[in-house]
Amino acid sequence: MLTVEATDGQARSGRFETSHGTVETPAFMPVGTRATVRALDVHDLRAAGAGIVLSNTYHLMLRPGADVIEAAGGLHRFMAWDGPILTDSGGYQIFSLQPRITEDGAAFRSVYDGSSVHLSPEGAVAVQESLGPDIAMVLDVCIGLPAGRPAVEAAMERTLRWAERSLAAHRRPDQLLFGIVQGGVDDELRARSARATADLGFPGFGIGGLSVGEDASDRNRALSAAVAELPIDKPRYVMGLGDTEGVLDAVARGADMFDCVLPTRLARHGKALTSVGDFNIRRAEFIGSNEPLDPACACLTCTTYERGYLRHLVATGELLAHRLMSIHNLTFTLGVLSAARAAIIAGTFDAYRAAHLAGRGFVDIDGTATMP
Amino acid sequence: MLTVEATDGQARSGRFETSHGTVETPAFMPVGTRATVRALDVHDLRAAGAGIVLSNTYHLMLRPGADVIEAAGGLHRFMAWDGPILTDSGGYQIFSLQPRITEDGAAFRSVYDGSSVHLSPEGAVAVQESLGPDIAMVLDVCIGLPAGRPAVEAAMERTLRWAERSLAAHRRPDQLLFGIVQGGVDDELRARSARATADLGFPGFGIGGLSVGEDASDRNRALSAAVAELPIDKPRYVMGLGDTEGVLDAVARGADMFDCVLPTRLARHGKALTSVGDFNIRRAEFIGSNEPLDPACACLTCTTYERGYLRHLVATGELLAHRLMSIHNLTFTLGVLSAARAAIIAGTFDAYRAAHLAGRGFVDIDGTATMP
Repeated sequence: MLTVEATDGQARSGRFETSHGTVETPAFMPVGTRATVRALDVHDLRAAGAGIVLSNTYHLMLRPGADVIEAAGGLHRFMAWDGPILTDSGGYQIFSLQPRITEDGAAFRSVYDGSSVHLSPEGAVAVQESLGPDIAMVLDVCIGLPAGRPAVEAAMERTLRWAERSLAAHRRPDQLLFGIVQGGVDDELRARSARATADLGFPGFGIGGLSVGEDASDRNRALSAAVAELPIDKPRYVMGLGDTEGVLDAVARGADMFDCVLPTRLARHGKALTSVGDFNIRRAEFIGSNEPLDPACACLTCTTYERGYLRHLVATGELLAHRLMSIHNLTFTLGVLSAARAAIIAGTFDAYRAAHLAGRGFVDIDGTATMP
Repeated sequence: MLTVEATDGQARSGRFETSHGTVETPAFMPVGTRATVRALDVHDLRAAGAGIVLSNTYHLMLRPGADVIEAAGGLHRFMAWDGPILTDSGGYQIFSLQPRITEDGAAFRSVYDGSSVHLSPEGAVAVQESLGPDIAMVLDVCIGLPAGRPAVEAAMERTLRWAERSLAAHRRPDQLLFGIVQGGVDDELRARSARATADLGFPGFGIGGLSVGEDASDRNRALSAAVAELPIDKPRYVMGLGDTEGVLDAVARGADMFDCVLPTRLARHGKALTSVGDFNIRRAEFIGSNEPLDPACACLTCTTYERGYLRHLVATGELLAHRLMSIHNLTFTLGVLSAARAAIIAGTFDAYRAAHLAGRGFVDIDGTATMP
């Protein structure tokens, strides 16, 4: 159950309990694909402000195997993170592998060794019960957009049937199992999926199949259609969304949780998200610069190093670059969520959102423009 | 000037001042080739016990360029390390590139872009004055072993002539310029080189051209021959030596300083140096292990993570593995030096050295043996 603590328009701040502590919302979950947020240790994650992290069932079931993690004491002990963990079900990864889908489940090949793997809705529940996250996700049928309405509807309907089977298979009382709303960017399908998934009685809801290349306006409309049918007292998690503009759009529509590889993936390519805009530190203008990466940031990277040094690390392919840039981009993203939460409580969310967007006028992450 | 604080046989503990603080000896210098010890930040280095770090003139003069580092405020500010820094002269790197050597200097091609570069003894001094380390090294003539005596002698003699030119070119009063003793594994040449280099009046001495594949007994003999001719009140730095057995051998013969990429390079290949032996964490027996990497170690890696997790990170090629293994291997190596120093002060160096060697009986870094 999510306790709503404050609302500001449709935006809301809240909290809910898990076996490893409270999740304060709105919340961004850094993605630790293989039980590690790339290049960061768990102390880095805490320092960046992470309260809950995500890991990936698909990858963990293949390497090192859910049985190995279970025998080692579960995912929390394995990755040394004692706070809340959410695992996705693997649906999104599996559907990028052109799986063979039947009503029973998905058959696909391992990216690690090419072996054949079959995952049913019940199997995804069992794997996640072995892994032991605080929040597990049902296996859903993901579909690339754009797609015709019949295909989107069929995927949504099958996701519903799989959700029901998942719920029936779920055993661990210390683990929350979230349903997933599908329906593409079709308002009516989104509403129907949300209503039916809510009726199944899940303690929380993923909103899947968005942030896959659709227009922001389509995404926002579909999101609003889904949120309108979801219960007020349960968390709503927009899967795969992580750019701060998109996240604030979704928060404004009543969404509570987010995850995305974007902040850390951009970091590993030298791309900084900052209070003065987004830019690639590799650009020649940063050679020898004595400025901090983001003058408004208090992270280890910004308080220890200068842009000229970071530029050197990125340009020479040094390993330290990945960690330093990731620490900053995560601190930035988590800071936006934290500030949004404070603004909702203060009743100033719209003003905060407008100021955030205005302050980041300079966005030229791949480009050649000169900073203002 | 090195103040000898205690001696125990030929082993000695001491200290000397630099512009950025005191160096306590015996000291191991982690290698930050491109102004970064791979995968580690400066807080990691402090936590591991590093007091002085080494960086690499050859790499820095090419990327980002000594002028860039000078303009950015010097190497300390650039890499955010406010303790002592030593830069090598680039001799060792250059001589691995089959340079064209004349009496004037070395001509070689940049590994970064293939461009032609010329470095003279005076140039190496000037570059290091731009970089601004606390300790600079003269450009020396390195020669691969085994080599005939005439070639070793000629390289040693040219190194001496270059040392004299380097000293004449050196201007910065806040920077110590160390000479370098050469002479292969020939006792007589080593003694002659040491005597002549000492006569030039350098404030400290590198002992170069060792740890390049020669037998430990040859190395130790050559080292003793050199040390016997060097002044007591100046530091003696065995260049490129970093395995703890070799370091303790050299400390027993009166050496004070060491550097080597070995601890961090092994780390990046999953190879752990521990109090219970050296092993590759990738081995299957560590799958799911709940043991710390080294039960006797208090580093971040050993107090946060278990072998099973580290094995997973290494096996899946995760970036975090590089940092965690490097933190441990450096903590281990620096801890041996710190313990050796304490043992010399306590007059128990021989016992410490024997116990260290005995405790590390299991050394199977590439192998398949099972741990005891």
